[in-house]
Amino acid sequence: MDQDVNHSGAIHQLKATRIGIDTQQELVVYMRADCQVCRAEGFVAQTRVRICFEQRHIVAKLNVVSAALLASDNIGLSDSAWRQLGVSEGDTLRIEHPSYLTSLSFVRSKVANKPLSSKAIAQIVADVVAGRYSDVHLATFLTACAGDRLDLPEVIDLTRAMVETGQVLDWPGRERILDKHCVGGLPGNRTTPIVVAIVAAAGLTIPKTSSRSITSPAGTADTMEVLTTVDLTLEQMQSVVEAEGACLAWGGSVNISPADDLLIRVERAINLDGEGQLIASVLSKKIAAGVTHVVIDIPVGSTAKVRSHKRAQHLATLFVAVGNELGIRVLPLISDGRQPVGFGIGPALEAREVLAVLQQKSSAPQDLRQRALRLAGLLLELSGQYGSGEGGEAAQFLLDSGGAWEKFQALCDRQGGLKTPPTAPFKGEIRSRVRGRVNGFDNRQLAQIAKLAGAPKAKAAGIQLAKKLRHRVEVGDLLMTIHAETPGELRYAENYYQRLGDVIRIN
Amino acid sequence: MDQDVNHSGAIHQLKATRIGIDTQQELVVYMRADCQVCRAEGFVAQTRVRICFEQRHIVAKLNVVSAALLASDNIGLSDSAWRQLGVSEGDTLRIEHPSYLTSLSFVRSKVANKPLSSKAIAQIVADVVAGRYSDVHLATFLTACAGDRLDLPEVIDLTRAMVETGQVLDWPGRERILDKHCVGGLPGNRTTPIVVAIVAAAGLTIPKTSSRSITSPAGTADTMEVLTTVDLTLEQMQSVVEAEGACLAWGGSVNISPADDLLIRVERAINLDGEGQLIASVLSKKIAAGVTHVVIDIPVGSTAKVRSHKRAQHLATLFVAVGNELGIRVLPLISDGRQPVGFGIGPALEAREVLAVLQQKSSAPQDLRQRALRLAGLLLELSGQYGSGEGGEAAQFLLDSGGAWEKFQALCDRQGGLKTPPTAPFKGEIRSRVRGRVNGFDNRQLAQIAKLAGAPKAKAAGIQLAKKLRHRVEVGDLLMTIHAETPGELRYAENYYQRLGDVIRIN
Repeated sequence: MDQDVNHSGAIHQLKATRIGIDTQQELVVYMRADCQVCRAEGFVAQTRVRICFEQRHIVAKLNVVSAALLASDNIGLSDSAWRQLGVSEGDTLRIEHPSYLTSLSFVRSKVANKPLSSKAIAQIVADVVAGRYSDVHLATFLTACAGDRLDLPEVIDLTRAMVETGQVLDWPGRERILDKHCVGGLPGNRTTPIVVAIVAAAGLTIPKTSSRSITSPAGTADTMEVLTTVDLTLEQMQSVVEAEGACLAWGGSVNISPADDLLIRVERAINLDGEGQLIASVLSKKIAAGVTHVVIDIPVGSTAKVRSHKRAQHLATLFVAVGNELGIRVLPLISDGRQPVGFGIGPALEAREVLAVLQQKSSAPQDLRQRALRLAGLLLELSGQYGSGEGGEAAQFLLDSGGAWEKFQALCDRQGGLKTPPTAPFKGEIRSRVRGRVNGFDNRQLAQIAKLAGAPKAKAAGIQLAKKLRHRVEVGDLLMTIHAETPGELRYAENYYQRLGDVIRIN
Repeated sequence: MDQDVNHSGAIHQLKATRIGIDTQQELVVYMRADCQVCRAEGFVAQTRVRICFEQRHIVAKLNVVSAALLASDNIGLSDSAWRQLGVSEGDTLRIEHPSYLTSLSFVRSKVANKPLSSKAIAQIVADVVAGRYSDVHLATFLTACAGDRLDLPEVIDLTRAMVETGQVLDWPGRERILDKHCVGGLPGNRTTPIVVAIVAAAGLTIPKTSSRSITSPAGTADTMEVLTTVDLTLEQMQSVVEAEGACLAWGGSVNISPADDLLIRVERAINLDGEGQLIASVLSKKIAAGVTHVVIDIPVGSTAKVRSHKRAQHLATLFVAVGNELGIRVLPLISDGRQPVGFGIGPALEAREVLAVLQQKSSAPQDLRQRALRLAGLLLELSGQYGSGEGGEAAQFLLDSGGAWEKFQALCDRQGGLKTPPTAPFKGEIRSRVRGRVNGFDNRQLAQIAKLAGAPKAKAAGIQLAKKLRHRVEVGDLLMTIHAETPGELRYAENYYQRLGDVIRIN
């Protein structure tokens, strides 16, 4: 079907101009209501239109603008549309109706609780990756798949589709490719940089690609970004792994499982992620990154992402089953998720604790150290290089001997140099009005406060806890310090805290 | 909590300018990255911000613009934001962080299948009406409530909340206020104008407010708009009803159940509506309009909105139950939904058939006439003015005597004059490649074709059927004519038809 030529034989063309509007990843184009294209095609504001340049195309949302902003033979592109289409000022673009999105009918069936076929899932994911879904369509798909609404075959199909619509890496000459992942929900649980350093120090291969945060105040990529460069090209990443057996990169910059990145943006806005979506997101990134053996950390706590041992067991079983089907060995580890790990929450605050553990400082949080050692030990055993029960001791030796810290510095050097984490210019102290003993944390509310303070976008923002479980508290004792990069964000986080009751439970 | 003043005591103010961008109902504001507010508050593109002017405020999406588009002490407003905030060029606006949306946690609970409390629903609806939900939040809420995911108490609470967040009308001196509604899904089912004319001709009260289409090619308001003015103010509507006992107005212009209007916009984009949402949408409009007795037409067919008698019965029971709880008498009527009603699909094409029935033309579609008579008969009986079984005959007399046509003209005159429906400049004929007898229609695909042709926005667009169920068809016989206002839309609808198999089934 020739989409370029309309009924009367005319081709709709307008000249590209970068209008100077930043809409983040949302693709928006701007046309005048009185331009020939809007008049001929009946386009009005919020219509979805297809914009073609050479062999590339995008589907974008149309905003209609007045004559003052645009010449009538021009089409304005948002910064995101400009980048994605790769055009220059004055290039001639073709404007068309987008094809009818048949995959949306599959999404509607899913909303009505009908299972999705392999073909349906493949088509939905292909349309998502091609940018044919608007934000409300993505939100509908995510909500329809949220909670436990995807069954095992659907999760397998979704994972496979997400792998196949992106780049797939392999690591020639290296046999077992290791990785670790935490399903999240536990603020401050920044074990990854430590685990990678230990495992790589053992001479094993762990090419770590991490996401930025979905609903938390910091993802591993956000934290690593304050220590070194994480936006590596594929070639840069390969050369770091070639040299060091490991890397600590942001997955998004190498086009691994691009569907995941598009879905995560809307998941973040609606602050929602489902079990099947979670498994597909995690495993698609791992499989596409060429990983063969992975440990998955599943923290359980009443205010963690996974709230009961029963759900954790279920999730663990699903992870293993999907992994088996897709040829990746998954070892789940159910861990304590009752309180934040360490004391810092937010990219820079967590990065400082990672450094303290690696540098074997006496001030290093013991819980962060112990968790990292346990995960690293399991990976050493999964590698086949260490026998069952030998991994823990080996990991401790690699950390305490300084081998892991040396490896971490080498890794950061290869990625562009080790940086010093920034410090927040605005701080607010929260002190106790009661005395007693800490007997609980609300992880979700802590995460919310850190996010309102600006994390993860504001790297220095977040929370520094002063107390942990079972610590004694006197009236007036410092409970936590909120860090922010602007006074408005500090005030916003403080106001939110004041309206809450039980962020830290003391009795 | 004082939201106006930030931590350092400064008040964030910028001067309003209408930037000249139409984003339909979506509220968007434009600021420079280097303006004092973005710098102080850490605002980036896509952030939601609260904009205050005098006692009013809106929550809008932020787009960040370059220096060429805006002075640094200005804030640009989209046409929608400009209208809703009611400002003038140069007015000083206050810019703040929006309050934290606690009601989103209720939406997330619902996604996880937990029932919503009355308080939760009231807060969600209040936040929706205040414009605090972005489009992805609305899509998440709608999807979480889609299908049959709302239970009876939730539907009752949702209906009540939607009534209470808008204007509520009463009709002093009039006892029974009648109404009718069709749940939709059946193209061309445009009985409302005929029923209103008949019932009003009997001297009864039927102040009809209709919605525009959600997922169909034409709602009653869309069709009536080609015959007269439907955007009446409350005062205009009251004066029409005062004089004629009836009106045929668009509900949106009188701020009845504004939550419904906001939800419908996103429902339309995702082409999805749920059972509970449907009942709340319909009954909230009726109750807020002061209606006491309503007939609900529920067409059943394999490709109608309601596909089985069992589901229709369930929906009918829910309608009656919610109505009883909220003090409105509901009489459901389950009807034949196997094929479109009449021959025209689309605002102008349907309007012409409405006129043919009212004018008792021999060319008038008999099925449209019969359905209208049945509904009008039931309403005459519900009014208490006619005994059980007497309504049908009375309705027929009112139509055949010309009384209904006279009343319809009087109504249109009061609303601004009777208009002639527009004719489409572009037409495409679809002819049969086989011979046989028509034995089925795909109502959904017909609706889709009519929408791709431009309906309901393009008033003259749609489909004129040439054949109905059980009609004989020879090879080359005309099956339907697609009407469009632009060549692009005609081609788009034709292309879509060509890719389909069984829009009209012939054997």
